[in-house]
Amino acid sequence: MNSGKMTAYPPLDKDSKLKMPALGIDIGGTKIIAAVVDSEAILSEPVKVHTPLGPDNILDTIFALTNKFTEEYALAGIGIATAGIVNTETGTIIGATGNLPGWTGTEVKNIVENKTGLPVHVENDANAAAYAESRIKEYKNKDCIVVLTLGTGVGGGILINGSLLRGQYYGAGHCGHIKLSMDKKRLCPCGLFDCFEAYASGTGLLVTAYEMLTDSVAGQTPLSVLAQSKTLTNEALIDAFTRADAVATKIMNTWQSHLAVGISSLAHVFNPYCFILGGGLTQFVDLDRLTKQTQDITLPGIAKHIKIVKSEFGNNAGFIGAAQLVLDKLAKTK
Amino acid sequence: MNSGKMTAYPPLDKDSKLKMPALGIDIGGTKIIAAVVDSEAILSEPVKVHTPLGPDNILDTIFALTNKFTEEYALAGIGIATAGIVNTETGTIIGATGNLPGWTGTEVKNIVENKTGLPVHVENDANAAAYAESRIKEYKNKDCIVVLTLGTGVGGGILINGSLLRGQYYGAGHCGHIKLSMDKKRLCPCGLFDCFEAYASGTGLLVTAYEMLTDSVAGQTPLSVLAQSKTLTNEALIDAFTRADAVATKIMNTWQSHLAVGISSLAHVFNPYCFILGGGLTQFVDLDRLTKQTQDITLPGIAKHIKIVKSEFGNNAGFIGAAQLVLDKLAKTK
Repeated sequence: MNSGKMTAYPPLDKDSKLKMPALGIDIGGTKIIAAVVDSEAILSEPVKVHTPLGPDNILDTIFALTNKFTEEYALAGIGIATAGIVNTETGTIIGATGNLPGWTGTEVKNIVENKTGLPVHVENDANAAAYAESRIKEYKNKDCIVVLTLGTGVGGGILINGSLLRGQYYGAGHCGHIKLSMDKKRLCPCGLFDCFEAYASGTGLLVTAYEMLTDSVAGQTPLSVLAQSKTLTNEALIDAFTRADAVATKIMNTWQSHLAVGISSLAHVFNPYCFILGGGLTQFVDLDRLTKQTQDITLPGIAKHIKIVKSEFGNNAGFIGAAQLVLDKLAKTK
Repeated sequence: MNSGKMTAYPPLDKDSKLKMPALGIDIGGTKIIAAVVDSEAILSEPVKVHTPLGPDNILDTIFALTNKFTEEYALAGIGIATAGIVNTETGTIIGATGNLPGWTGTEVKNIVENKTGLPVHVENDANAAAYAESRIKEYKNKDCIVVLTLGTGVGGGILINGSLLRGQYYGAGHCGHIKLSMDKKRLCPCGLFDCFEAYASGTGLLVTAYEMLTDSVAGQTPLSVLAQSKTLTNEALIDAFTRADAVATKIMNTWQSHLAVGISSLAHVFNPYCFILGGGLTQFVDLDRLTKQTQDITLPGIAKHIKIVKSEFGNNAGFIGAAQLVLDKLAKTK
């Protein structure tokens, strides 16, 4: 580690710059990723490990990662991003997430602070990712920014005057679960019907592909053969799309039109400076087309301000945001 | 006026209490309503006049009302609530509203301040109404409150830590235009399809009634006869509902289920302390049923906090909120 590898950020606001770095840890359903970051760059090579089963094993992984990095870095604190609803005052997980069984109720901040002696901030992962984006200079002093993460699910994080919108009970920003239909048309992985996530996520994209390929009367195509044998994957679909396959392009356009409906709803509610799209699927979004699609279904006074950009941090946003949150908190209390 | 008639508010927060009252003026598409209010009560009998055509005539009405009230009251300022998007820094109307032709571009604050010599604050009407509700003691220090006005349209106002959410360009809070469907099922009066307002407003309720009465195979009923002759009104529908007519009850339940979909979307985004429902239709909402309907389509971690209450101010919320806004602004700058 620390082998000269340093990934600089896009320019961040420097007012609250702290000299010491923090460890950022992003706990997802399948993997945990951690790196040492300061207000200018990722200092260490990010470390990725599989998420172990159960809260005790996850906490042990956090301790092991902290030990590993403290050998080389003097850390100011630890920022932890995690799936689920987090009470950010106490650092306790208060909302269940199916991907991390038993995690609800874990007093992450207390436990990790007691064990490591370092200040800890715990944050919902989509919020942490949104915070990272918001720290870029261009966005720092804006009244409102909406960040959407398009991955297996759809995550959301909202910045109001540079602060995360957490709502009254820390559950705000669940943009993936606004409704796109009233008709119980499509089950969402969350168990509800017609959530934004059921259409705009990777999971939703695949369902759209299956629906369109099954409905199709245009004869056999490589994709429809895969769909008929129930072996179609997002990878195959994206592969066909990048080769400009006509059917794949049509499917991706439909997926993007679903994305436009959710963004339009959020535009009416927030009228933000911009929407920032992150997550693995974002690279396949045609921003000009999406902006136009969204404007077409939005009130003119709101539509004219719609601006959609792509994330600068990609999959690193979670741990970077978590680390920035603990650094900014420490800078404030200094 | 001032004939001993004084309508006390529910208890407001008293920190920012100012001794002098303000004139609150609410400019709607059909009527203008104005009264003198302070931080404890409506001091004067509210005055209602028809909204005249064109910005010059509206401004003349504002001047006439101000003259009328300054004969009896020493005013600290004037708060003006109006349809449309308002730049609240400059007090200029920046967003068109079909109901007030020519109003866009009017520098209301400058013009009224120059003419009257009094400090003026101009605010979107739904925001002003939301602000009135948020000043009630119980809600004053909450992190997030969502106010919905169910009238001819659906208005929205969102309070974050006691401040109105205005977005980057003053257009936030257009909750009536989040989408309830992707299928272009129903045209909204705004010209877009499937807005929340197209279902949950009075206009939407009547469309729902016509749809259900036309679809009905249950034979002739007093309401279906009205629908067939295209003479059904909301008044007749509500009248039948209050007489426990089975068909009217079914229609109102369907209307309320549409309301639940919009509230669920907003609950996922804001996770607020509560939703406050105002506007003429609110009195027909069954709060227990609506809460249950909303919870049934909401993630458990968010659903358990859903709390829906009815407005304390009714149709007076607009001018009360506008007056409180100018009073609170003056108290801050003192």
